[in-house]
Amino acid sequence: MNARQGERPMHAVVRAELHQSIREGRFRPGDQVPTEPQLMERFGVSRTTVRRALRDLETQGLIVRQPGRGSFVAQPQVEPRLDRLTGFVEDMEALGLHASASVELIETVPAPERAADALRCEPGESVVHIERVRLANETPLSFDDSYFVADLGQRVARENLRDEPFYSILEEKYGVALAGADYVVRATVADERVADHLQIAPGDPVLLMERTSCIRPDRAPVLFEYLHFAAARVSYRLSLDR
Amino acid sequence: MNARQGERPMHAVVRAELHQSIREGRFRPGDQVPTEPQLMERFGVSRTTVRRALRDLETQGLIVRQPGRGSFVAQPQVEPRLDRLTGFVEDMEALGLHASASVELIETVPAPERAADALRCEPGESVVHIERVRLANETPLSFDDSYFVADLGQRVARENLRDEPFYSILEEKYGVALAGADYVVRATVADERVADHLQIAPGDPVLLMERTSCIRPDRAPVLFEYLHFAAARVSYRLSLDR
Repeated sequence: MNARQGERPMHAVVRAELHQSIREGRFRPGDQVPTEPQLMERFGVSRTTVRRALRDLETQGLIVRQPGRGSFVAQPQVEPRLDRLTGFVEDMEALGLHASASVELIETVPAPERAADALRCEPGESVVHIERVRLANETPLSFDDSYFVADLGQRVARENLRDEPFYSILEEKYGVALAGADYVVRATVADERVADHLQIAPGDPVLLMERTSCIRPDRAPVLFEYLHFAAARVSYRLSLDR
Repeated sequence: MNARQGERPMHAVVRAELHQSIREGRFRPGDQVPTEPQLMERFGVSRTTVRRALRDLETQGLIVRQPGRGSFVAQPQVEPRLDRLTGFVEDMEALGLHASASVELIETVPAPERAADALRCEPGESVVHIERVRLANETPLSFDDSYFVADLGQRVARENLRDEPFYSILEEKYGVALAGADYVVRATVADERVADHLQIAPGDPVLLMERTSCIRPDRAPVLFEYLHFAAARVSYRLSLDR
């Protein structure tokens, strides 16, 4: 027995041992980790303790729990770059992953305050609201809550959004030239709605980007989005010069 | 009574009403919000319900709870830019805020795996580990866990780190020219240690940047850091071109 075990809560002991096994490659991505009864027996602890340890590992993104099936070592994180404006499909293709989308909602609504502000329209003016879940190799990575200015949004809403990303519709189909985007990058936790779309638990960490995409020639804003990334699955890389 | 109240859990009703009061400016930054007994009476709900609502508002960064004193409307978020490599003091000065630091730890240790990898040294080779809490106008915004390559770190460790930031020591005192930095940007939640340094609760969201600072002329890495930002207090802005 480890000399420190007496000082640490048992859920931390169980968590640390599983973490080490994953880090050292004894359990590999996709492998099932021992079941709750196996862990209860091996450590001589309660189901509550085992569940606390597994829950912590899930929050850290190291395992994925599938109700009724067990816990599995998570796939490594997806780490797209954030050096220039690219869309989700471009990011996934650059990493050799297959991107897909599930369209959850399309509606015309009065602009919420934050979207109106970003799109430089009056609060309450009509905007087109689209919700999509973005997947890479069938795993949901991002839940995108998007607001288009009305004229462009009404055209985009009639496209095949399951297969075609916004940026290629705008650039390749409509000949609209994107100039760039402004981002606010935040950390938050999933509420019930976001958790449900991302297949994570409420309270799990989420990397939230508020992105305003602008077009040439005058950098007019046309699209404001909340991009909610499951933090256990996605982080972004960038490089800055001094 | 709002027609939707019957459909929503009461903690959501309490939360939404307080949220609206803050958004519309009836409660302003620094104002005390009604106490738990006041809210229990006004909404006819239990203390558990009131606490759930206040906890949610705290997680969203809208209020700050001070044990024994009550809940107060949070100061607006600090939103530094992430367009070029700047240090915390530069970022805060650009926003008109007073930056300070509290040095929590200085030690020479064998390089942990991730730091060794970033600094291109062998795991176990000596590095200088420094922990600091960074404050703006006396509020802790960031907990920085920094690893310097040994030679530079041993010099830096003897400086007045309470008043002088790393980058000005390197550039102005030592004549070391920074080239830039590589970042991995993640969302996570605070563990007990990070929560304690940032004066937030364990489980609260944290914007985590893993930053490797490099020097000229060959972009050699000299400093690897985990920068943990209290997500309720800090988010970053950046702009990208298409």
